[in-house]
Amino acid sequence: MVVVMQEGATEEQIQHVINRLMDMGFDIHRSTGARHTVLGAVGPKIDFDTRDIEVIEGVSEVLRISAPYKLASRTFRPEGSVIQLGEGVAVGAQKVVVMAGPCSVESAEQIGTIAARVAAAGGKVLRGGAFKPRSSPYSFQGMGEKGLELMRRAADQHGLLVVSEVMDQTQIPMMNGYVDVFQVGARNMQNYNLLKELAKVPKPVLLKRGIAATIEELLLSAEYLMSGGNYSIVLCERGIRTFESYTRNTLDISAIPVVHKLSHLPIVVDPSHGTGRRDKVAPMARAAVAAGADGLLIEVHHDPDHAASDGAQSLFPDQFDQLMKELRMIAPAVGRTI
Amino acid sequence: MVVVMQEGATEEQIQHVINRLMDMGFDIHRSTGARHTVLGAVGPKIDFDTRDIEVIEGVSEVLRISAPYKLASRTFRPEGSVIQLGEGVAVGAQKVVVMAGPCSVESAEQIGTIAARVAAAGGKVLRGGAFKPRSSPYSFQGMGEKGLELMRRAADQHGLLVVSEVMDQTQIPMMNGYVDVFQVGARNMQNYNLLKELAKVPKPVLLKRGIAATIEELLLSAEYLMSGGNYSIVLCERGIRTFESYTRNTLDISAIPVVHKLSHLPIVVDPSHGTGRRDKVAPMARAAVAAGADGLLIEVHHDPDHAASDGAQSLFPDQFDQLMKELRMIAPAVGRTI
Amino acid sequence: MVVVMQEGATEEQIQHVINRLMDMGFDIHRSTGARHTVLGAVGPKIDFDTRDIEVIEGVSEVLRISAPYKLASRTFRPEGSVIQLGEGVAVGAQKVVVMAGPCSVESAEQIGTIAARVAAAGGKVLRGGAFKPRSSPYSFQGMGEKGLELMRRAADQHGLLVVSEVMDQTQIPMMNGYVDVFQVGARNMQNYNLLKELAKVPKPVLLKRGIAATIEELLLSAEYLMSGGNYSIVLCERGIRTFESYTRNTLDISAIPVVHKLSHLPIVVDPSHGTGRRDKVAPMARAAVAAGADGLLIEVHHDPDHAASDGAQSLFPDQFDQLMKELRMIAPAVGRTI
Amino acid sequence: MVVVMQEGATEEQIQHVINRLMDMGFDIHRSTGARHTVLGAVGPKIDFDTRDIEVIEGVSEVLRISAPYKLASRTFRPEGSVIQLGEGVAVGAQKVVVMAGPCSVESAEQIGTIAARVAAAGGKVLRGGAFKPRSSPYSFQGMGEKGLELMRRAADQHGLLVVSEVMDQTQIPMMNGYVDVFQVGARNMQNYNLLKELAKVPKPVLLKRGIAATIEELLLSAEYLMSGGNYSIVLCERGIRTFESYTRNTLDISAIPVVHKLSHLPIVVDPSHGTGRRDKVAPMARAAVAAGADGLLIEVHHDPDHAASDGAQSLFPDQFDQLMKELRMIAPAVGRTI
Repeated sequence: MVVVMQEGATEEQIQHVINRLMDMGFDIHRSTGARHTVLGAVGPKIDFDTRDIEVIEGVSEVLRISAPYKLASRTFRPEGSVIQLGEGVAVGAQKVVVMAGPCSVESAEQIGTIAARVAAAGGKVLRGGAFKPRSSPYSFQGMGEKGLELMRRAADQHGLLVVSEVMDQTQIPMMNGYVDVFQVGARNMQNYNLLKELAKVPKPVLLKRGIAATIEELLLSAEYLMSGGNYSIVLCERGIRTFESYTRNTLDISAIPVVHKLSHLPIVVDPSHGTGRRDKVAPMARAAVAAGADGLLIEVHHDPDHAASDGAQSLFPDQFDQLMKELRMIAPAVGRTI
Repeated sequence: MVVVMQEGATEEQIQHVINRLMDMGFDIHRSTGARHTVLGAVGPKIDFDTRDIEVIEGVSEVLRISAPYKLASRTFRPEGSVIQLGEGVAVGAQKVVVMAGPCSVESAEQIGTIAARVAAAGGKVLRGGAFKPRSSPYSFQGMGEKGLELMRRAADQHGLLVVSEVMDQTQIPMMNGYVDVFQVGARNMQNYNLLKELAKVPKPVLLKRGIAATIEELLLSAEYLMSGGNYSIVLCERGIRTFESYTRNTLDISAIPVVHKLSHLPIVVDPSHGTGRRDKVAPMARAAVAAGADGLLIEVHHDPDHAASDGAQSLFPDQFDQLMKELRMIAPAVGRTI
Repeated sequence: MVVVMQEGATEEQIQHVINRLMDMGFDIHRSTGARHTVLGAVGPKIDFDTRDIEVIEGVSEVLRISAPYKLASRTFRPEGSVIQLGEGVAVGAQKVVVMAGPCSVESAEQIGTIAARVAAAGGKVLRGGAFKPRSSPYSFQGMGEKGLELMRRAADQHGLLVVSEVMDQTQIPMMNGYVDVFQVGARNMQNYNLLKELAKVPKPVLLKRGIAATIEELLLSAEYLMSGGNYSIVLCERGIRTFESYTRNTLDISAIPVVHKLSHLPIVVDPSHGTGRRDKVAPMARAAVAAGADGLLIEVHHDPDHAASDGAQSLFPDQFDQLMKELRMIAPAVGRTI
Repeated sequence: MVVVMQEGATEEQIQHVINRLMDMGFDIHRSTGARHTVLGAVGPKIDFDTRDIEVIEGVSEVLRISAPYKLASRTFRPEGSVIQLGEGVAVGAQKVVVMAGPCSVESAEQIGTIAARVAAAGGKVLRGGAFKPRSSPYSFQGMGEKGLELMRRAADQHGLLVVSEVMDQTQIPMMNGYVDVFQVGARNMQNYNLLKELAKVPKPVLLKRGIAATIEELLLSAEYLMSGGNYSIVLCERGIRTFESYTRNTLDISAIPVVHKLSHLPIVVDPSHGTGRRDKVAPMARAAVAAGADGLLIEVHHDPDHAASDGAQSLFPDQFDQLMKELRMIAPAVGRTI
């Protein structure tokens, strides 16, 4: 931490700050300039609230030197992490991994039909919700365990892995029997009790960025998983909330190069939730790959008119086929294949 | 729902929309103008996704007629709700209710000292966290049940009620023995499994607005509680995330009159989390009462320099006394007392 | 400026940064810690782009020590500025100054009727637009000079001062004959050529915050005026753009105590544009005074149904009377009168 | 406009709304449902404020049927517009047009060196500022006319066109002698007096989106130019202001497909201002082309360490060469070439 004292701060004020910093376990380097005294505070502590120093009389500004996370930081693994999701499928390596499927699992027939199309087009992971966090209590809340069972069967039949959302920690043991990857939804990115339990599970976690979460907060949530023992994390950008209301959210494509700089963890993009409209999904999926995304999470439905949820943002299977062709043309520009 | 067709929409397109709407259970009123055909869709259904219609060919715009919530709506109880928190303490009535206390419970001595000052100044409810949702896994996570025990004792000694945050549904039965009001934090406003369980508890819930939640989403979360059977809800504005970074959040004072118009539920304001800085707490607390808030939630600590969390935004007890005096001067301007 | 080098930054990288900083005219204090080297850069320069240092190899973070403005800073005049608008009317002193009137001047009768009511209720300044920045080219664009003439006459008759918006620098000489205070609208807060010309005019400027401007940017725009010679500036908070769409903008009440801390300039609040709805104006006006605002800018119209612009957010004169009574009850809580 | 009355609205209230709408020049279609009365208001008027109706007693919600712009709307020219910038250079056609150059013109040598590299790499238009809108009054404000002269010469020598920013309407006649395209900066997007004068100039305008402007507001500003007679408009996305502070702005890539749907006007992207950091420019430029952008505006400087402004976001010429190669690989995926 670097603490800049105000012009004219008294010696007493400076000593008070030094004492507080030493109480907090820091070593202090003091540098007295013509106008400002600057204090460098160095120590092993990673958790502190810079506001505790900011409110002290005589303090002008405080700057963290180090990121508030360490295991999620790029310096922890400068070469980058490759997260193994299952046999032959890894995120963060040369191949861009496409995960696709319906918003909700609705029936054996539905999930089977879609799984077949996803696999045929080159998708590697089947996505689909069995527990749905819906903003209205009157909306379809998902099929529950039955949905996971149907999804597992469809995925196995077509050589796909399964990713599905877990809504709270009590669901983990049951879900563990069905999924290859636990998805933490945007609304649960800061459900720390859920993260603490997922940290103990020997399976990868797909961690979605909250709609109002900074990239630093996303990495702090990853830190919860890693500090608890689970290093298999795939981050997911899915749109942030801004003043622009034409799109459901604003997909922050720049999060891709930012995460790649700050962290060793791979990042995938969900253009379906990121835009909320079918006709915006393909352009944003192409943009994500062009910007260097490690994978995509895409909603596909063969009959979106009758989808139980989010039909408006689901691609038809033919549109998905076409998109995959376009992505195969773009990937080589960033040294990747699909 | 009102559906506006594009200029030049074909008869076939219009029929397709009408069929979809009828499938969804609506009665249709069709009105054909010079340039646009407008369809009015009327029915008992409250849960539908307007985007399902928006993406149909030929549709220009779609407008919900009714709010997506009904029990939380002002029309449900035009006279407004008064929520009884405990003996002699009600939110939404003529008295502005002040809840105050430390961010975290730290020791018997700490909570006792603060409770005494809160009660002496006219506070009615003791606030304090035993389970703390912290963005860093390395931060103090709260004292747990021991903290609740200490808080209950301090509150009883000084004639105060107790409000404390519940982080997930597994904590409810244990906490039920200690608290008068369950607080749902901003990060959990859309933790629906938690809301569904709290809906079954015969105690009031203080529901905080998420930092990126619209007022409509806040009311939808209240609807989860009400549709599950719990009508004792106090809403809480505690700041939203905006581009302005000088304050930790931007406290949305206008949410007070907006909530009063849209809903019958009372709303209190948390100026401590809303600003993140001690010197901004009193001005914003005064503003909240002047704008018509039904109560306040304020952090007070007798030794904020050594607080385990959020010391920077806690008032000293003497500042709290002074603030209470100012609030007593303001309340009559809105026909209230404190 | 304080520059924190990355862990493991090479001596060569550190020297490169030191050379760049010296080129920029700074004196350097170097402090070498166990993990990080920290460079303090001190000098008279106020204008520099910290990103120029941030992008250099080996640099971790850069912190400005001093604010990018100096004349607008509280340290420039710790006692605060009182801005004289005209005879007997000063903003920033003990009295809260109320400015009120229609959105647009429409006719002699209209402005006369409203001026009479504003003066009778205790307003000191008549507001009204003659040149209107409208988002649609098809909207009423204002009466122009004729409107100013009518407004001047109405104000003189009722002992009021005149504030009106200037849209570009070519209008200054003409307007100078009619107004007491030049208003710079939110859309023009960063119209620097306009600011440079207003800096030369010996009249006060009411500078509105842009809807996406940080408080720092607002103060930088004030700095344009002050560095050009005009020190008579009244700042105005009028709402910022956020994700919440129920209100037109989110009125940032916390900007009042923030500006009072950072700057010596007084700040008034415009609850009419800040909310966009008549029924939200009074609560927010009360909140502003309770939070310490130095004045208010309020839209009043005796026949808002037929107003040429912004009728929806104009108070009826009787509502304005009632509001003034409430404000007179609140002001003493902050040591003010109206 | 569609007006939805509240449940239980009285006949008198309904009649009042109908009368207001008829006063405003609308024909009314009334539809009385079981719970709500819905009024369709149809007429030639494009400019009205829906809030005027919203605030009337008994009104529940109001929906514009038609966009508030017409000339900028896609329906005005369904086939899309191709904007001719100069001989052989058109935006909106099959070729993606790259405009590049320094932030500010600094010297004959500087602009000449950069122009040579831009042309060699395949750029078609030279960008560079002679008048700079800087947030600080102490920052470099541009070379003025001398800069334009140097830029024109360098462009001519290398077969490039010239685009440069105009800051207010008084500069138009002089600048007209030097530039091929007038650039309106983000801060001036709603400087309507400037737009009205540019509407009369027979040259294309590059209109940048304001940092807090919705896409609708951007199109309304285009409507100012078009309704005044200038149909040669190229829109430019350059980042919006959000809560995320790691990047300077959040580049809204989804604005590309949204603009293509709503309007016939072409849209280019400025990844330099959109991100503010050199290492983010190439990923975002690739993303823009993959999402269907009609062109790019990129800052290039051969010596960014000594650039007078925005060096931190300028590409080195070798980086620009590399980027152009990558873009040539991506363009065919969207049926384009560069």
